[in-house]
Amino acid sequence: MSLTVVGSIAFDSVRTPFGERERMLGGSAVHFALAASLFTDVCVVGPVGDDFGEEHLALLEARGIDTADIEHVPGGETFFWRGHYDHDMNVAHTDETQLNVFAEFAPKLSTASREAETLFLGNIQPDLQRDVRRQSSAEFAGLDSMNLWIETARDSLLAAIGEVDCLLLNDAELRMLTEVPNLAQAARRAMEVGPEVVVAKRGEYGAALFTADGAFAIPGLPLEDVRDPTGAGDSFAGGFLGYLDAVRVGGNYDERALRRAMAYGSVMASFNVEDFGTERVRGVTEAEVAERLAEFKRLTHFEEAPVSA
Amino acid sequence: MSLTVVGSIAFDSVRTPFGERERMLGGSAVHFALAASLFTDVCVVGPVGDDFGEEHLALLEARGIDTADIEHVPGGETFFWRGHYDHDMNVAHTDETQLNVFAEFAPKLSTASREAETLFLGNIQPDLQRDVRRQSSAEFAGLDSMNLWIETARDSLLAAIGEVDCLLLNDAELRMLTEVPNLAQAARRAMEVGPEVVVAKRGEYGAALFTADGAFAIPGLPLEDVRDPTGAGDSFAGGFLGYLDAVRVGGNYDERALRRAMAYGSVMASFNVEDFGTERVRGVTEAEVAERLAEFKRLTHFEEAPVSA
Repeated sequence: MSLTVVGSIAFDSVRTPFGERERMLGGSAVHFALAASLFTDVCVVGPVGDDFGEEHLALLEARGIDTADIEHVPGGETFFWRGHYDHDMNVAHTDETQLNVFAEFAPKLSTASREAETLFLGNIQPDLQRDVRRQSSAEFAGLDSMNLWIETARDSLLAAIGEVDCLLLNDAELRMLTEVPNLAQAARRAMEVGPEVVVAKRGEYGAALFTADGAFAIPGLPLEDVRDPTGAGDSFAGGFLGYLDAVRVGGNYDERALRRAMAYGSVMASFNVEDFGTERVRGVTEAEVAERLAEFKRLTHFEEAPVSA
Repeated sequence: MSLTVVGSIAFDSVRTPFGERERMLGGSAVHFALAASLFTDVCVVGPVGDDFGEEHLALLEARGIDTADIEHVPGGETFFWRGHYDHDMNVAHTDETQLNVFAEFAPKLSTASREAETLFLGNIQPDLQRDVRRQSSAEFAGLDSMNLWIETARDSLLAAIGEVDCLLLNDAELRMLTEVPNLAQAARRAMEVGPEVVVAKRGEYGAALFTADGAFAIPGLPLEDVRDPTGAGDSFAGGFLGYLDAVRVGGNYDERALRRAMAYGSVMASFNVEDFGTERVRGVTEAEVAERLAEFKRLTHFEEAPVSA
């Protein structure tokens, strides 16, 4: 079992009502990989510049993450994002984006990365996602995207979605992509493009899963300390696909495994938001993950009983 | 077991992307009563005008609802609301409000209404809510409110909340009331005012319950047909308090009963939005309620299992 992720490797400068940080290690591939590394073996694919140091590699390698496909572009600078959140932390405000080495990125997967059974195409330009999908022999591939690509590269994005098994999007983006305001109908419309599994991420409200068998929904844990939501969606995806890769039997997953994967995704997202950047997830233990899964179970569990009970 | 509700009895003119209706029977007390009547005996308290006819009384009485405390104001007109929803049906746009007979409403509860074990103070001016609370000998009282009263009658509202056992508010209103952006912290702050139970309603995202014992959350059912959300919050409250009244043992409820009440509230809200006004809830059967409760259980159920499973 192993999982390859392609996506941004970034430095993020973030301000929230609870503090700020300059140039933290971040990016979709980093957040995803750290979360997934609790469950399975992970290879990261993506470009970095001269400003990406040994200490950043070490942070990933401490989690057993394979960094051989992190491509160092001499003379380049790593992707940079600056953003902030006001009191409604469901909304990220982008203040600055520097593509840097990402502008010229042409993914080239090593044999190990190509052969991973599971693939995650993090939020990057959809033609790049398709390029990586073609290089990979993964039996199960997931894809994330964002409003930017829905607006500027819609056809490429639809083609990319048609080539994966699982689509993960924010609920607003799923509605935007399909132009269907009702979420359940939007998910079904997205399935017609190709994926058998559609996950609608809902920020603090949790996430919903749609398959041919029906729907599943999990609320967000009502955390008392939410410091920085940056990367929560990628941590969710890392827990979700990391767990699925860990329990894989052939290329298919039963409904029970998918539901449990939703719960593990929610667990990893809940850790993500408790501190800035990767500060919480990179140190989380398996015992903490198990404990929080039990907390999610308690949060959502109710017993059916007739009214006369 | 019996339950008294005070709130608006109204005619609503509503337009949504799925159609429109003129002067439907509505109002917080009506939506609440119809939902609660599936679970327990309900008395409705509130004023109506000359335009409120026998057919409207008959609609309530067909559900066994006690209408003796519906006060007919000769020469008056019933409360009227006109509003619409765009594609984001979480947001109601008010186009017109006529208080009419509500402007002079001085609630006077009959003996039967006073002696009901459970009381629901629907969304009306908080001094009226306090007046009704003082007349009632209910062992368990719930209260709903809205942004208007938070902005214009904050002190009265806080006093009213201090006199009930359970507060039900939209999550945005709970944050506005407490001035605490984090929902879990906002719920705890609200509990300091008095209520032991706080329910945050979240529209299509479901609802969250907070007690001294912890939190519970239930997602909304991902319905494919949502036609009119008007009254969904009151139908939720009707299912929630109606179920609690039906299973009451003394004045207290254990955590399991509260969680089941959340599920029944969600069931009734899900029926509410499937058609305009009261059109769906007023005809719903006990068998349909039981079936949908099972659907909610399926929607939210997952089994814990270690990653190695």
